[in-house]
Order: sequence, then C-alpha cells, then structure tokens
Amino acid sequence: MKLKTILIGILMLSLSTQGLVAQQTQNLAEKLGYDKDAKLLIIHADDLGLSHGTNSAVISAFNKGGITSGSIMVPCPWFPEIASFAKTNPKADIGIHLTLTSEWENYKFGPVTSADLVPSLQNKQGYFYPTVEAFGAKANPAEVEKELRAQIERAMAFGIHPTHFDNHMGSVMVNPAFYQILLKLGHEYRVPVLAPKDMLLAAAPQFLEQIAKDNVLVDHLFMLNQAPVAGNWLQPYREFVENMQPGLNQIIVHLAYDNDESRAVMIHHDDFGAQWRQNDYDLMTSDKMKRLLSDNNIKLVTWRQIKNVMYPANEQ
Amino acid sequence: MKLKTILIGILMLSLSTQGLVAQQTQNLAEKLGYDKDAKLLIIHADDLGLSHGTNSAVISAFNKGGITSGSIMVPCPWFPEIASFAKTNPKADIGIHLTLTSEWENYKFGPVTSADLVPSLQNKQGYFYPTVEAFGAKANPAEVEKELRAQIERAMAFGIHPTHFDNHMGSVMVNPAFYQILLKLGHEYRVPVLAPKDMLLAAAPQFLEQIAKDNVLVDHLFMLNQAPVAGNWLQPYREFVENMQPGLNQIIVHLAYDNDESRAVMIHHDDFGAQWRQNDYDLMTSDKMKRLLSDNNIKLVTWRQIKNVMYPANEQ
Repeated sequence: MKLKTILIGILMLSLSTQGLVAQQTQNLAEKLGYDKDAKLLIIHADDLGLSHGTNSAVISAFNKGGITSGSIMVPCPWFPEIASFAKTNPKADIGIHLTLTSEWENYKFGPVTSADLVPSLQNKQGYFYPTVEAFGAKANPAEVEKELRAQIERAMAFGIHPTHFDNHMGSVMVNPAFYQILLKLGHEYRVPVLAPKDMLLAAAPQFLEQIAKDNVLVDHLFMLNQAPVAGNWLQPYREFVENMQPGLNQIIVHLAYDNDESRAVMIHHDDFGAQWRQNDYDLMTSDKMKRLLSDNNIKLVTWRQIKNVMYPANEQ
Repeated sequence: MKLKTILIGILMLSLSTQGLVAQQTQNLAEKLGYDKDAKLLIIHADDLGLSHGTNSAVISAFNKGGITSGSIMVPCPWFPEIASFAKTNPKADIGIHLTLTSEWENYKFGPVTSADLVPSLQNKQGYFYPTVEAFGAKANPAEVEKELRAQIERAMAFGIHPTHFDNHMGSVMVNPAFYQILLKLGHEYRVPVLAPKDMLLAAAPQFLEQIAKDNVLVDHLFMLNQAPVAGNWLQPYREFVENMQPGLNQIIVHLAYDNDESRAVMIHHDDFGAQWRQNDYDLMTSDKMKRLLSDNNIKLVTWRQIKNVMYPANEQ
C-alpha cells in the first residue's frame, strides 16, 4: 500500500513537472491552439442580472455571437432570470461579477450575506454604497470576503459553474487587500480572476509579479469611458482593435435595451446610461464589428478556455 | 406636581370619553362629512415599488385621479423610486403593503431584516417563499413581527408617513397570530390596518368583534380574481359598484404598463399578469369608470381620512 502511494506520488510529480515544462515553453495563445503571436480577444458583457433589459440584450448578443463572455451580479433582483439562462445554456461563458456597490438612484440592492454580518458594506438605508470611494472608506476586508463568498455560493446554488470572477465598478481595486481576497477566492474555487495587467501596473505594481506567477493576466483591457463624439460608436473600439497587440485582450461592454426600464434604472446617468448600452448592443451585434475583428485577424476566446489552462479538469 | 399630573389625567380621560361618545353617535360616513348612508369607496392600487412599470402606471393613475390610495412593497428593488414619489407628494395617500412572499419566477426579493434573524421567512435560495401556503407552513410569529417592523421602519426612514398598513397576497391571513401582529403594529404606529369584514368573518370570526371594537372595518372589499370573459374588463367592477352598500368599501386594483419589464416580471402568470395590470390601469383612468362612480353616487375616500378618524392628530 505504502509503495503504491509513493509510486502514485512520483507519477503525479512527474505529470505535474511535465505540465510545468509545457507551460514554460508555450504561451497562452499556443496553449489555446493558436500561433504564439495571435491576438486573443474576450468580448465581455458586464452587469448580467442587473435588470430585465440587460438580461434580454445580453442573451440576444450571446445568441448572435456578439459577445464571447459575460458576468452576473448575484445581489440583483433579476439574478434568477439570468441564472436560469446560464443553467440551461451550460456552454455560455458566464462568470460572476462580484458586486459591492449599488450606484443607481431609484433602484437598489444590498448584500447577499445576512445584513448584520456585513455592516461595513451598507449605507444607512441598508443598501451597498453608491460609489467606490464610499465603499473603500468604510468596507472591512473580513466582511468583503464574507460577502464575496456568499455571492459565489449563491450563484453555485443556482446551478452556475462560473468560468471566471470579476468585479463591479472595479471596487476591489480600491484596496490591495480586497483584490488579494478576490485572487484567493479564485484559487480556492479554481476559477480565473480578471487580472488586467495595465490596471495592476498602475494600481498595485508591487503585486504584479506575484499575481502574474499565479494567474493568467489580461495584457490589455479596453472599456469605453466616454461617449464617442459625433455618435461614432465604432471609432474607439476600432482604434483599440486596430492597435491590438499579441496576447490576451479584453473589451468590456455594457449591454441593455434602451427602454422604459433601462431609462429608469439609469436615470441621470448619461455615462453607461440606457442609450449608451443600446449603442454597445447594436455595435457588438453588427456586421461592421464582426468585419473589424476578422479584418484584423482577431481570435475570439472565452474565459472557459483560460480556466481550462489555469485549472485543467484532470488536476481537479 | 402630583396634583398637576392627576388633573391632566382627568382632563385626558374626559377628552377621551367625549371622543368615545361622539364615535358612538356618528358613523364613519358622518365623521367624514357625508350622509350616514353614503357609499364610501377607496380605490386602492397594490404592489407599489414592485417594478418600474408598476410605479409609473401608479403615479400616472394618481395624477389622473384614477385611484385614491396605494401601498408600497418595501423589500422590492424599485422601492426607492416610489418612496421618492411619496416624499415629494406628501398628500398622496400611500401606505405600506407589508410583504412576506415573493411570487414571481425570475425576479425575486427577500427580507429587509438581517437574513439570519428571520430564517423561517426564507426559502433555500434566501428569498421569501413564493406561496402563502409555504410561508404559512414555515413562518414563525416572532420573525414575522421582526420583518414587518423592519419594513415599516425602512419606509419611515425614507420619509414615508404611511396612511395605512395592508399585506401582500393576504399572507398574514394564513394564521390569526400573524394578523394579530399586524393589528398590534397598526395601533403601536397609530396607522389603520386593512380589516376586511367579509374576509375576517370567513377567516377568523372569533376575532371579528374584538377587531371591530378597535379598528375601522372595510365593510366590503372587492378584488378581481379572474379575468372577465370576452374582455369586458368593466363588467365585474360595474357589478360591484352598482350593488355597493352604504358603508366603507374598497376596490383593490393592480396597475402596471404592459411592457417588456412587466411581461418578464409576470412571466407564466396570466392572472395578475402584465395585460391584466394594463387593463386595470386603462379602466381606472377611463371616463367610463368615473361615470360609473358618479352615476352611482359613490364617495371616494382615502386611508388618510380613516387615519384621521382613528388617530386624530390632537391625540398624538
């Protein structure tokens, strides 16, 4: 028995060493079956579950191939609707958009955790803080961890197998301790965490090396932050795509139909408002976007592929 | 000091005895300035705060004089929107629709109280139970009281001065102990509670006399429970109005615009669905409904008027 255990141990060590050697010799693109200079791109919709107008636009965009990936806000009231889509479409590339802020004026949500266990995450009204600054000033790390775990566990209880974790409004970036919690949970649940190289270099350069050692980094992340002038919604995306470098890239989009519900959710928000989200939906599902990607030889990839590289199923 | 206290005591007793005598000699209609045989009617919209499509239809119906009253579901995500309307329209007759169930398929809400303090009110997913039966089988009275208090306190923290309390899906009627809690809270907060004579006679005849002693009863309550045949939405309402008896009557309506959001909230519910709610909205804001009421000499009243009778401001 003992000998057998030792032999299995040696075998596993050998397999794992082989894996390590292979990992060192192949870059991500090669591991995914592409040339090593391939420009890989994830087109990712944020805020799934936020509202019905978001869910229906996102589902349509998945069906039309306009996005490769998306992530779900578990605390939102429309979470069950998108969870049901995720469960009945297990191939859809869906992660968890871990949420610690509630930014809209008339439409609010709060912690999944029992409220008295996470007082530092709530304003006086019992909802999440509306801004990253207010969240950063009040939140305590143990409560952040408790709430992130509760969101992950609820998503899994709804039958979701998340392909990745990311974070609403980048709130965890406000404090390196919060981001470390996210990374820790990623390793614990064997789920990749969005680790944007550009942003980490700016926000936490001291951790970059360590993070890069244990995670697949997104080399370049693009998210529209300002509405393009003269209504040319394609232009900033074209600029990013035409200048894209080899490696792993991600575009974050915000999709929703511009209808009564969306306009009421996003009232007084021109940025990331209802019209903005309709524009993103229209562009991502358009032929001109598809042409832009193929003209520039962009390889669309998913977080599930990254997950399979970081956490191969046979190692589970 | 002691004599002064006794004198104030005697004075208060005397005022209260006078009040009692006046109460015995005038019926509700007379106290509200009508003939004693007047047919009083509250037209009441339920489910305020449920969704944006509900809030906007209800606000429009208030503005058009199609309803006299409404009540708010505090646990719903759109509560802040309707709370803001209530705060900026202090004359609008708005109460609290105390909520202990979450019946829609893809759109969910749960307790306002910290979740671990009210485990008996939540299903495995952490939301309220979808049916009154499941709620009734699991809920414990101390937790029901805790949650009702939390909803009242949150509403008041948002600047709402509720004119009445009622209850979503009649869930508290499942157990006399629950309904007693509601009545107790009404007296404590000096807010009238919907006490429908017909229903109480059927559900808890043993309590009727006691309830009648301490509360203003609604003599006849009408709520559409089945869609009228051949699309004649007016017909059941006309029947109720034409047969209305003197005393206090209430019609409960469910208003929302039949749009994407409403259809998604109410998916798989024909009864009380999106089309149903649009029909109620259309009818309540129509000229034919107004004509029906005036032809039958119906006096529209509000819960605020009942509140002023039950709890005169000078007794507060």
